[in-house]
Amino acid sequence: MVYKKITLIGSSTEGFDAAVDDAIARAEDTLENVHWIEVESQGVELANVDDREYQATVEVAFQID
Amino acid sequence: MVYKKITLIGSSTEGFDAAVDDAIARAEDTLENVHWIEVESQGVELANVDDREYQATVEVAFQID
Amino acid sequence: MVYKKITLIGSSTEGFDAAVDDAIARAEDTLENVHWIEVESQGVELANVDDREYQATVEVAFQID
Amino acid sequence: MVYKKITLIGSSTEGFDAAVDDAIARAEDTLENVHWIEVESQGVELANVDDREYQATVEVAFQID
Amino acid sequence: MVYKKITLIGSSTEGFDAAVDDAIARAEDTLENVHWIEVESQGVELANVDDREYQATVEVAFQID
Amino acid sequence: MVYKKITLIGSSTEGFDAAVDDAIARAEDTLENVHWIEVESQGVELANVDDREYQATVEVAFQID
Amino acid sequence: MVYKKITLIGSSTEGFDAAVDDAIARAEDTLENVHWIEVESQGVELANVDDREYQATVEVAFQID
Amino acid sequence: MVYKKITLIGSSTEGFDAAVDDAIARAEDTLENVHWIEVESQGVELANVDDREYQATVEVAFQID
Amino acid sequence: MVYKKITLIGSSTEGFDAAVDDAIARAEDTLENVHWIEVESQGVELANVDDREYQATVEVAFQID
Amino acid sequence: MVYKKITLIGSSTEGFDAAVDDAIARAEDTLENVHWIEVESQGVELANVDDREYQATVEVAFQID
Amino acid sequence: MVYKKITLIGSSTEGFDAAVDDAIARAEDTLENVHWIEVESQGVELANVDDREYQATVEVAFQID
Amino acid sequence: MVYKKITLIGSSTEGFDAAVDDAIARAEDTLENVHWIEVESQGVELANVDDREYQATVEVAFQID
Repeated sequence: MVYKKITLIGSSTEGFDAAVDDAIARAEDTLENVHWIEVESQGVELANVDDREYQATVEVAFQID
Repeated sequence: MVYKKITLIGSSTEGFDAAVDDAIARAEDTLENVHWIEVESQGVELANVDDREYQATVEVAFQID
Repeated sequence: MVYKKITLIGSSTEGFDAAVDDAIARAEDTLENVHWIEVESQGVELANVDDREYQATVEVAFQID
Repeated sequence: MVYKKITLIGSSTEGFDAAVDDAIARAEDTLENVHWIEVESQGVELANVDDREYQATVEVAFQID
Repeated sequence: MVYKKITLIGSSTEGFDAAVDDAIARAEDTLENVHWIEVESQGVELANVDDREYQATVEVAFQID
Repeated sequence: MVYKKITLIGSSTEGFDAAVDDAIARAEDTLENVHWIEVESQGVELANVDDREYQATVEVAFQID
Repeated sequence: MVYKKITLIGSSTEGFDAAVDDAIARAEDTLENVHWIEVESQGVELANVDDREYQATVEVAFQID
Repeated sequence: MVYKKITLIGSSTEGFDAAVDDAIARAEDTLENVHWIEVESQGVELANVDDREYQATVEVAFQID
Repeated sequence: MVYKKITLIGSSTEGFDAAVDDAIARAEDTLENVHWIEVESQGVELANVDDREYQATVEVAFQID
Repeated sequence: MVYKKITLIGSSTEGFDAAVDDAIARAEDTLENVHWIEVESQGVELANVDDREYQATVEVAFQID
Repeated sequence: MVYKKITLIGSSTEGFDAAVDDAIARAEDTLENVHWIEVESQGVELANVDDREYQATVEVAFQID
Repeated sequence: MVYKKITLIGSSTEGFDAAVDDAIARAEDTLENVHWIEVESQGVELANVDDREYQATVEVAFQID
């Protein structure tokens, strides 16, 4: 059993849970067997955006073997 | 005045605030004089669960003297 | 272009998103050109408060030149 | 579902795997529902012992609810 | 030989050495075979106290097998 | 000369060396010019498995130019 | 309730407690509502000084709202 | 003798040395008795800029007493 | 909006800026919408090379959605 | 009683325990009163070697007074 | 101007300041041009000693060119 | 094959690359078989010097067996 981990940054104008969900949704769209994610960091972009953009950097672990 | 710190992992299918609250609730059920908690890490379990399970690892500080 | 970063701790009885928003609101009240914030740590104060007080320590980056 | 984490240091004169197994064995003797462990650090005691003593500090996670 | 580590916060109005000693004294009152402690962090509480309260968070290692 | 680094988690019921070897074997099956790996963390899964499953998270560096 | 944190380095020829007190004294001279400090690092300057100069870098948290 | 530390982010289209110099120049324009700086992190902005923008986050220490 | 981050190691016999540029050039050759990079570590290879080889490990963030 | 710590990297084609033993053997050949070692990092060299070369970076503490 | 840094562990039955002074004294006995030290960690040995033994691990920087 | 690592701080009035080169030059003057260096931190001394003094703390790895 071998897992691979990749790093995604999800975003949302609603909050951090939704930003994490955004990254998970993307991972599950393109990868099979996603097992868990870990939140690495959280931030909010305020310039160059219409609204506050909550961002979550997450590590996504999925089984490859 | 002496405090002790223990580490709990709370979980919820709703989000990270609820996962933290889950750990606090457990701490307050079994300990007296809980003063504060610190969030150590956040993650989401996706395999072997019916729904996304948000998890928060927290350090709980309570006064023992 | 030069940015300065300062550290604020926002709080809320509702949750961590609101605690982060509290710090952002304070930053935008007193500073111009706030570009982004980074969440440094999260905790909950339980003693000496009426209700659970969610706290978020954030670094605020704003342009000064 | 709530987990608790405790920190144990196992030891062995054979190597690090056996030192980790020593800590796991102790955990499983006294706790139910041990789910996983994480290795925090590894070292070797050389003074005041007959033989090299491999030591592993591990965090043990077990389900309490 | 297995050790367990717990985390205590000692305090003193005199200084950090006394705050560490406070945590050690508490550990030795309730535990046998305390072998060493490690200082994790140091701080001073200034609000809600009569005098400056020096605090030391320490990890206490004691032999359980 | 440019290298890329990816993160894999190998596993074994025998021990940590075999878990690291598992990740290396997988890397060498699918990548050319693997130059070195770095061990990031080690853990043991105890629940939901027949036997103790030693896991090693490793960063794999391979030359792409 | 919003706090701000700033970083000061206090010094003393007597020891680390006095170096921390030096930073606290300075903070309380110029700021109101200082709530707590955290010790970030400790060092001793030996060159270009008459005597050993103990230095403590501390983060000072004070309430601004 | 008390120092204060603040965090600035300097930038340059030429490279990291110039980005650090940019932050130092700004510090020396507005502060007296700047003693040293420490580089905290380095990055390059590539989107929303005409040219690569090298950025250096630095902590600036200056004497206030 | 979702970003992905990958880790590259660029190299140069001239210096660290050129090593970072080497990694950026590679990233921009094979990826679209590269937004920023962060320098993770810097080193110099001295053995098995004709000349000093400056190396920079960078995280590359690019937009995938 | 004063200790000094130095950093060695041991290697082996057999595994990490043997790599750590290699560093300990070297330390004990040239130093007296070696008291303990701490494992700092572990890696495997795969290029430019006949076989996998397991490497362990260890800090060696020995008494000098 | 080139500095070298070495790591020493000083000890004292009186407290941490004296443990740091112990390491400094040793450094100044055997090295010229010691410029500064940084405290890396602090601990207390309680077993196998007559009295509490405060220990301080310090990095010593001295000029060699 | 055993390596030893030592820590040097090089300096230059020109920039960080030259500061790193300064430390490498010193290492190669007094040590044989220097294999690689890792940059630990970078800073600039501004007080008590005629010109900005860029400083780089590097770990130097050299083969001793």
